Amino acid sequence: MQGVPPLQLRIKNNLCDLLRINTDKGCVINDGKSRFSINGQPIYHFLGTSTFSEFTVIHVGHVAKINPAAPLDKVCVLSFGATVNVAKPKKGHSVAIFGPDAIGLTVSGALRIIGVDLNSSRFEEAKKYGVTEFVNPKDHDKPVQQGEMTNGGVDCSVECTGSIQAMISAFECAHDGVAVLVGVSSRDVAFKTNPVDFLNERNLNGTFFGNNRPRTDIPNFVEQYMNKELELKRLEKLITHSVPFSGSTKHSSTCCLARV
Amino acid sequence: MQGVPPLQLRIKNNLCDLLRINTDKGCVINDGKSRFSINGQPIYHFLGTSTFSEFTVIHVGHVAKINPAAPLDKVCVLSFGATVNVAKPKKGHSVAIFGPDAIGLTVSGALRIIGVDLNSSRFEEAKKYGVTEFVNPKDHDKPVQQGEMTNGGVDCSVECTGSIQAMISAFECAHDGVAVLVGVSSRDVAFKTNPVDFLNERNLNGTFFGNNRPRTDIPNFVEQYMNKELELKRLEKLITHSVPFSGSTKHSSTCCLARV
Repeated sequence: MQGVPPLQLRIKNNLCDLLRINTDKGCVINDGKSRFSINGQPIYHFLGTSTFSEFTVIHVGHVAKINPAAPLDKVCVLSFGATVNVAKPKKGHSVAIFGPDAIGLTVSGALRIIGVDLNSSRFEEAKKYGVTEFVNPKDHDKPVQQGEMTNGGVDCSVECTGSIQAMISAFECAHDGVAVLVGVSSRDVAFKTNPVDFLNERNLNGTFFGNNRPRTDIPNFVEQYMNKELELKRLEKLITHSVPFSGSTKHSSTCCLARV
Repeated sequence: MQGVPPLQLRIKNNLCDLLRINTDKGCVINDGKSRFSINGQPIYHFLGTSTFSEFTVIHVGHVAKINPAAPLDKVCVLSFGATVNVAKPKKGHSVAIFGPDAIGLTVSGALRIIGVDLNSSRFEEAKKYGVTEFVNPKDHDKPVQQGEMTNGGVDCSVECTGSIQAMISAFECAHDGVAVLVGVSSRDVAFKTNPVDFLNERNLNGTFFGNNRPRTDIPNFVEQYMNKELELKRLEKLITHSVPFSGSTKHSSTCCLARV
């Protein structure tokens, strides 16, 4: 119909058909290829990025030009959004973070921030960044969403692990609130629920890079940081590891956010 | 935890545990009973309402007191909300309404309003209320969300039928937009999708009475109507049938909105 822009021309978000990645194949949609290889074998792009490279040739749509004076070891952490843009917890809200990492821990103002993780060794570290309570599902017989900690569910939940079980828990514990799926699952799993579970005004939201529009938002964030309008201290504190490029494929199980 | 109100004391929505209906059993949660019977057999409450009665004894939480001067045959249609409060289509957006009835048809400002229904006889009537295009899934080999009409999906979809297939179609056709589930499905069906389908910033929202808070919102809407601040003409036009109380269990397949 005349006058209706097709998806690739809308500016609603950063996912236009022309440039969008193919999540099934880890390649760029416009030519079906990846941009990296090792010994002639392609290295596929996780979520269309996997940009651990100093030199590459990529589509202009995948480039965000930032202020050249910006310190790259600081502004590289500008990846928040899922909690702030999508879950939008308000002052006094309770928030459950499944896999309390840098994405989920950009919460502020919430009365309770409940970290849920199978690895209890992450709890002490996460406490420094605002997590007020911890749940290790292994310590409980019932699924976490059936626990009595929240007395009727949390206001927001953010799922950062990609585990289908954590996704279902995150959805079910947001009783009449917002559940945000950040983690990337495999194509082989199914999210299954009864539609009646949505009736409680429950919202299930997916997000891609925290609903940021990288080409416009990242340069703006960098400018705000350079102008001291953006407080990165909280996010900088989340950097638990700095690893050299050669060692970037290794990571620690206690890692919250690593910069390469 | 001290200071955290349990769900039944929050004012976020109208679904507090104390008063909430039991959707599985069609009874009131606080005593597990229905409020109506015929020949000694209980009549269960659909969504806790089913209030076709002139006299009854109900919990105070189920009552909304309105201006006694309000004309009941007009203000009885004050049931909108799912589209306006939840889908929130913007000017120029495309909207798909699965089961184009009074709930979905309170859309305004959208560039395209696509009605999807298995009953083609509803199309001519719905056109009068703003629907610009029609799809009867029976006329197509592919599921409607795979059709080429929308060139990449609609901005909003509203599912008003309760059919699980329509729910999945509504979700999948809202490519990177908002899908709203209004219809009430049976407890036996499962909504099943791959979580990767959420990554496109896709939102799946449930709603209960259009996210209105009846005890406070309905009296306010009535006041706005009485003060001529609320335009009911569009909604009044949606009344296709007026049936006497004795005939209220019968309805026409072409009915859009009936008042009793």
